[in-house]
Amino acid sequence: MKKVAIVGGTGYTGVELLRLLARHPAIEVCAITSRSEAGKAVADIYPSLRGEYDLAFTEPTTETLAQADLVFFATPNGVAMKQVPELLAAGTKIIDLAADFRIQDIDVWSHWYGMEHDCAELVEQAIYGLPEVNKNAIKSARLVANPGCYPTAVQLGLLPLIERGLIDTQHLVADCVSGVSGAGRGAAVGSLLCEASDSFKAYGVAGHRHLPEIKERLSMANGGPVGLTFVPHLAPMIRGIHATLYARLVNSQQSLELIQEWFEQRYMDHPFVDVMPLGSHPETRSVRGSNICRIALHQPQGADTLVILSAIDNLVKGAAGQAIHNMNLMLGLEEAMGLDIVPLAP
Amino acid sequence: MKKVAIVGGTGYTGVELLRLLARHPAIEVCAITSRSEAGKAVADIYPSLRGEYDLAFTEPTTETLAQADLVFFATPNGVAMKQVPELLAAGTKIIDLAADFRIQDIDVWSHWYGMEHDCAELVEQAIYGLPEVNKNAIKSARLVANPGCYPTAVQLGLLPLIERGLIDTQHLVADCVSGVSGAGRGAAVGSLLCEASDSFKAYGVAGHRHLPEIKERLSMANGGPVGLTFVPHLAPMIRGIHATLYARLVNSQQSLELIQEWFEQRYMDHPFVDVMPLGSHPETRSVRGSNICRIALHQPQGADTLVILSAIDNLVKGAAGQAIHNMNLMLGLEEAMGLDIVPLAP
Amino acid sequence: MKKVAIVGGTGYTGVELLRLLARHPAIEVCAITSRSEAGKAVADIYPSLRGEYDLAFTEPTTETLAQADLVFFATPNGVAMKQVPELLAAGTKIIDLAADFRIQDIDVWSHWYGMEHDCAELVEQAIYGLPEVNKNAIKSARLVANPGCYPTAVQLGLLPLIERGLIDTQHLVADCVSGVSGAGRGAAVGSLLCEASDSFKAYGVAGHRHLPEIKERLSMANGGPVGLTFVPHLAPMIRGIHATLYARLVNSQQSLELIQEWFEQRYMDHPFVDVMPLGSHPETRSVRGSNICRIALHQPQGADTLVILSAIDNLVKGAAGQAIHNMNLMLGLEEAMGLDIVPLAP
Amino acid sequence: MKKVAIVGGTGYTGVELLRLLARHPAIEVCAITSRSEAGKAVADIYPSLRGEYDLAFTEPTTETLAQADLVFFATPNGVAMKQVPELLAAGTKIIDLAADFRIQDIDVWSHWYGMEHDCAELVEQAIYGLPEVNKNAIKSARLVANPGCYPTAVQLGLLPLIERGLIDTQHLVADCVSGVSGAGRGAAVGSLLCEASDSFKAYGVAGHRHLPEIKERLSMANGGPVGLTFVPHLAPMIRGIHATLYARLVNSQQSLELIQEWFEQRYMDHPFVDVMPLGSHPETRSVRGSNICRIALHQPQGADTLVILSAIDNLVKGAAGQAIHNMNLMLGLEEAMGLDIVPLAP
Repeated sequence: MKKVAIVGGTGYTGVELLRLLARHPAIEVCAITSRSEAGKAVADIYPSLRGEYDLAFTEPTTETLAQADLVFFATPNGVAMKQVPELLAAGTKIIDLAADFRIQDIDVWSHWYGMEHDCAELVEQAIYGLPEVNKNAIKSARLVANPGCYPTAVQLGLLPLIERGLIDTQHLVADCVSGVSGAGRGAAVGSLLCEASDSFKAYGVAGHRHLPEIKERLSMANGGPVGLTFVPHLAPMIRGIHATLYARLVNSQQSLELIQEWFEQRYMDHPFVDVMPLGSHPETRSVRGSNICRIALHQPQGADTLVILSAIDNLVKGAAGQAIHNMNLMLGLEEAMGLDIVPLAP
Repeated sequence: MKKVAIVGGTGYTGVELLRLLARHPAIEVCAITSRSEAGKAVADIYPSLRGEYDLAFTEPTTETLAQADLVFFATPNGVAMKQVPELLAAGTKIIDLAADFRIQDIDVWSHWYGMEHDCAELVEQAIYGLPEVNKNAIKSARLVANPGCYPTAVQLGLLPLIERGLIDTQHLVADCVSGVSGAGRGAAVGSLLCEASDSFKAYGVAGHRHLPEIKERLSMANGGPVGLTFVPHLAPMIRGIHATLYARLVNSQQSLELIQEWFEQRYMDHPFVDVMPLGSHPETRSVRGSNICRIALHQPQGADTLVILSAIDNLVKGAAGQAIHNMNLMLGLEEAMGLDIVPLAP
Repeated sequence: MKKVAIVGGTGYTGVELLRLLARHPAIEVCAITSRSEAGKAVADIYPSLRGEYDLAFTEPTTETLAQADLVFFATPNGVAMKQVPELLAAGTKIIDLAADFRIQDIDVWSHWYGMEHDCAELVEQAIYGLPEVNKNAIKSARLVANPGCYPTAVQLGLLPLIERGLIDTQHLVADCVSGVSGAGRGAAVGSLLCEASDSFKAYGVAGHRHLPEIKERLSMANGGPVGLTFVPHLAPMIRGIHATLYARLVNSQQSLELIQEWFEQRYMDHPFVDVMPLGSHPETRSVRGSNICRIALHQPQGADTLVILSAIDNLVKGAAGQAIHNMNLMLGLEEAMGLDIVPLAP
Repeated sequence: MKKVAIVGGTGYTGVELLRLLARHPAIEVCAITSRSEAGKAVADIYPSLRGEYDLAFTEPTTETLAQADLVFFATPNGVAMKQVPELLAAGTKIIDLAADFRIQDIDVWSHWYGMEHDCAELVEQAIYGLPEVNKNAIKSARLVANPGCYPTAVQLGLLPLIERGLIDTQHLVADCVSGVSGAGRGAAVGSLLCEASDSFKAYGVAGHRHLPEIKERLSMANGGPVGLTFVPHLAPMIRGIHATLYARLVNSQQSLELIQEWFEQRYMDHPFVDVMPLGSHPETRSVRGSNICRIALHQPQGADTLVILSAIDNLVKGAAGQAIHNMNLMLGLEEAMGLDIVPLAP
C-alpha cells in the first residue's frame, strides 16, 4: 500500500479525493489536513463518508506530509507553492489540484492570479497532468500540475483537430458551462441555492483564469499562438462541465467521418475519453461521479464550422479523478486503478 | 373591454397567457379551448389560477372563437393554419404563438416542419410579431406570427450590429440555452425531472426549427443571406432563454463604447429591452416572469470578437408576453398594458 | 401617496418588499437602508429591479426613517428593538418582519433568541400581524409584529379546529418544509446550491425558534397550553412553506364535510386564504410569488387523525406580502391593495 | 460467476440494477429484457452505461430467463406474477422489485392494486426481502418480494421501538418524502421538471399503496394491528426517501440514551444501517447512490413524542441495492458484495 496525504481536505476537491480513494485498492490515506477544521473527524464534516475513514483533520505540517509517498494539494491558489519545495526535498511526490504550477509563463501566471510566484524555478519542472497528452512525462514526474476543469474539457475536444492542423486556430470559440461546485465550498452569496438555481448566466466574460491555461496548452499543440474566445457560464446543477466548441475547418471539404475516425484513434489508448458516435449529444449526467470525458462531433448543415461537444464531471475528470489518474501513473500503478466508477444516472 | 379567446389553453404558453391576462385592465378572456380537457374548469388544471377565471375549457369551434376581437393560437405547429382563414374571414384578429406563419419562404417552412402549408397565401400577409422591428406593421395587422423564443433572444442581440453593418454576418455563432418549459407540457421522457435536472446538454445541433426563422429574419435586416451556427442547449431550470452571441467586428478598431450607445439608441423607444451597462452579465432569473429582454455587450481581451449576452423568459418575452404586446398594438391599446410585471427574484 | 421606508433592504424579505411595493398604487418607498451597501443603487444589487427604483441604499438613521408614514424592519432579530422606541416617539408606524415583537412572554423570547429585550414594555403593545386573527387590532396598531413563515402556515391550518374545540390540542404534530430562501441571503455553507439541492433533511428537531411563537399563539386560541411537536425540514427549492399537520379529533364521528364548511366560513372574509376542495393537495408552486395560503383537509381511511395541508410562499404570505397586508390595514388602505399577484406557475 | 437476468430493464430500477451489477465481482448479467426496446443496445438507452455492457434488450421469454440462476423483475405491478410460476418450476430463483408478492393478505393486495392475483398460492412462500428482519429466511428463499421504498425507510426507523414495546403503536405517524424517481421513468406530466421542480406537495393522502405493506409488516412485528397515518410527499430532487416518524413513548420516563443503544445493538450485524449519533439530521444526499439507511433519534423538548429520522436512496436501499443484497444472500455470496459504494456528495 502506498501512502498519500491530502492538504485542504474540506473543499469539494478534497472530499472527492476521499470518496474515490476510499475504494482504491493500493492506496492508504495517511493524513488529511485543514487548518480550520483541525481536530474534527472527517465524518463529522462529511456524513457521506461515515464509516470510511478513522482520520481526523490535522495541521498541514511538513513533518506529517512528508510521511506520504505522494501529497495532493486541494488548496486555494498560492498555497501549494509555499510548501512544495521542502516536500520535494523530502522526497515526496506532489500533485497540485490548484493553479500554482499550471502555467509555464510566470508573468502570465502572476498577471492572472494576482501574486508573485514563490518557486518559479519549479514551474518549469512541473508536468502538466493531462494524461491524454503527457502520460509518459507524468510517469516520471515528481511534481504534477493537475489541469483546470474547463481546460480539461476544452483541450480534449480541440487537441485532435489542432494536432492535425485541421482548423483555423486563430478564431476558436469555447462556450462552456459549469455546475456550481466549480465555485467551491466557500460560503459565497453567488453560490447560494437561491441565487444560482432556476437561473443561467455567463460570468467572467472579460477574462477567466482558465483562459491563459487553455491558450498556453493549445498553443503548444499548435506550435504557435492560438486565438480563443472563452465564455464560461453557470448552470443550476451541482456537477458537470459542458463545452461547446466552435472551430472552422481549414478545408471545408474535409470528411467528417474521417475526423471522427481520427478522434477515435487519438483516444484509443486513453481509457477515460469516450468518443461517441457522430451526432451524439453528451449529457453531463452521463459522466456524473465518473472520470470519463465524453466527446461528440457535429458539422451543422455541412457548413465549414465544426461543433465539438465535450462533457466531464468537473470534480472527477476535472479535478480529483484526474489527480488520482496522475497519482497512479506517478506511483507505477495501473492507470485506471480505483477509477472504474459507473456514472450515477439518473 | 376587448374580448380575446385562447385556443389550446392547457400548454405552458396557454396558461401563461391566462396568468398575464388575468390582470390586463382592458381585456376579457371570453373563451379558452382544449379538445382534451373540454368541460373542465381552468382552475382544476391550474390550481395557481384558482379564483381568477370562471371559465371552463371548451371545444375550439369557429363560432365560439369568432366572438372574440382577437384569438391567440397556443397550439402545436400546424393547427392554426387550418382555422385561420375562416376566422380572418369572420373579422377576428389572430396571433399565432406557434410557427405556422413565422417563415416567409414556404418551401423552407415545409422542409423544417415536415408538412404542407394549408394557407400559404396568408403567410405573405402575416406580420412577424417582433415589436422592436415591426411595431407599425403590427398595429395594422390582422394576422401576427409571434416569434419563437430563441429567435427573439438572438435577434434582439444581433440586430443593432447587423443594421449598422458592424459585423461579419457570414460566421455568426448563437450558443443558446433554454429552460425545460421550452419543450412544452407534453409528457416526454426527456423533460422529466429525473432526466433533465442536475444535467446539461446540447440538442438538435444538426438543425433546430428556429434556425431558418432566425436566418430569414437576420438576412432581411442584413439585406442578404447570413451565415449562422446555432446550437441550442437544455439547462435544468423551468424558465429562461440565455443567448451567448459571437460576432466578429468588420473594423477591429470600432469603439465598444460607441456600440453600446448605438444599442441604447436602438432600443430607446422599446420598453421591454434593457441594455445593461457594458460588462454586465444578465441572469435569466432577473427577467423571470417578466416581458423584459436584458442585453449586455462584451469584447473579451479587446480582440475582434464581440460577445453579446441576451436573456429573456421564454414563456413571456419568448411567447405569451410578446403575444400580449402584439395584441396591445393590434387592438390600439398602450403597448405595455398588462405587462408591467416585476421579475420574481429570488 | 403614503411614504414607507425599509430598513435592511438587501436580504430576501427586503427585496421582496421592493418587488411588491414597486406596483403598489398608494405607496412610495422613500428610503431603503443597508449599512453594508450604503451608497449603492438598488438595481446594482438586484438587477431584477432595474428601472423600478431610483433609490440608493442609505444609512438607517432615525432622521431618515421618521419621514416615512411607516417603516418596515427587514433586519436580523434584535435590530428593530433598538430603534423602534424613538421611531414610535416620532409618530412613525412600524412593522417588524423579524421576531423582536412576536412573543409576548419576554422570558421565553430571551431564552430562544439568546438576548435581553431592549424594550420589553413595547412588546405588550405590539399587535401580532396575522390578519386572519387580528384584523381590527392591526388597523389601529402603531407597532405590528409580522409573524414567522412557519407560524403563518401552521396557524392558518389549525386555528379553525382549535377555535371550535374539535381536536386534541395536547398532541399536535406540525411537519413542515421550507425552501432555502427561509435561511436568508447570508452566505452560509448549508444554503449553497451544492449542499442543499438534490437533497432533503430535517433540521432543528431539538427546537426551532418558531416553536414558541406557534405554541403561544395556538395556546391563546385554545384558551390554555397546547402540546406540539414541530419538525422543520429543508427542501431543495427557492420559495415555499408546506405544512402537514396531524391532529386527532376529539369526536371521531365528526363529519369531515362539516369541518370543511367551517373552514370555508372561517376564512370567508379573508382574501388570502383559499380553502381548497376536500381531498386536494396544494403545491407550493401554486402560490409562488403570491400572498395566498392554500389549505386542504384530509381524513385518511376515515380514522380519527385529521391531516391538514397548508402551503404558502414564505417570502410573501410568510413575510413581505403579509407585511404589506398589515401596512394596508394600518394605513387605512384596502386590505388587498398591491397584493393581487397571480402565482407564477410553472 | 453466477448468471442473472433482468426483466424490464428500461425503468429506473432496471438501470440501477445494471449500474450496480456492472461492478459486482461474482455476477454476470446474461439477459436484460424490454418489450418496447427489444433490439436496442443498453448503451443507446443509457449513455451512462456506454462500455459497460454488450447486451441488447431482448424479449422476456421464459426460455431466455430460465438460463439465469436468478431473475430480477423490475417491471410494473402485476407482471411478475404471470411468469414467476414457470420460472420457479424451471429452477430459477426470483426477486420481484414490484409489489406482487409483498403483501400476504391477498384480499388487501387485490383491493389496493386493483387486480386479481394470478398465483396467490406463491405469495405465502414468498419471503419479504428486508434483510434486517428476514436474513436467514432470504438465504433459503426461492422467491423474494423486494420491499417498497417507503416501507423500507419506515420499518427500519420503527422496528426497534415496536419490537421492544416502547411506543404506542396505535397512533403512529409516518411523514415521508420522496424524490421524483420514485414515480418511475414513465412519461407523466406530474413528473416533468417544470411541474415537480421548485415545488413541494403531499400526494395520495387518502391512501397510498405502500400503506398496507407497512401496516402488515409493522403489525407482524407488533404481534397485532398497528394504527398508522402515512403521508407521502414529493420533493424536487431525483433520488432519496426521507421519513420523519412520530411515535409516543409508552413510558415517558424512558431514557433516550438507552433507546439509542438499543438501536445500535439492533443493527449491529446489519452492514447497511447506520445509526447516527443522537440528535443528528441525516440528509438524503449522504446516502446518494449507496445502499445505506441512516437513522437518527430525537426527543424534542423531552416530551413523550419520539421523532425518528430515516433516510435512504429510493433506487438503491429502496429498490435495486436491496435487491442485490437479497440476491447475495440467496446465492450464498457475501451479503455486501458489490454494494460497497461511497455515497456521491456533493
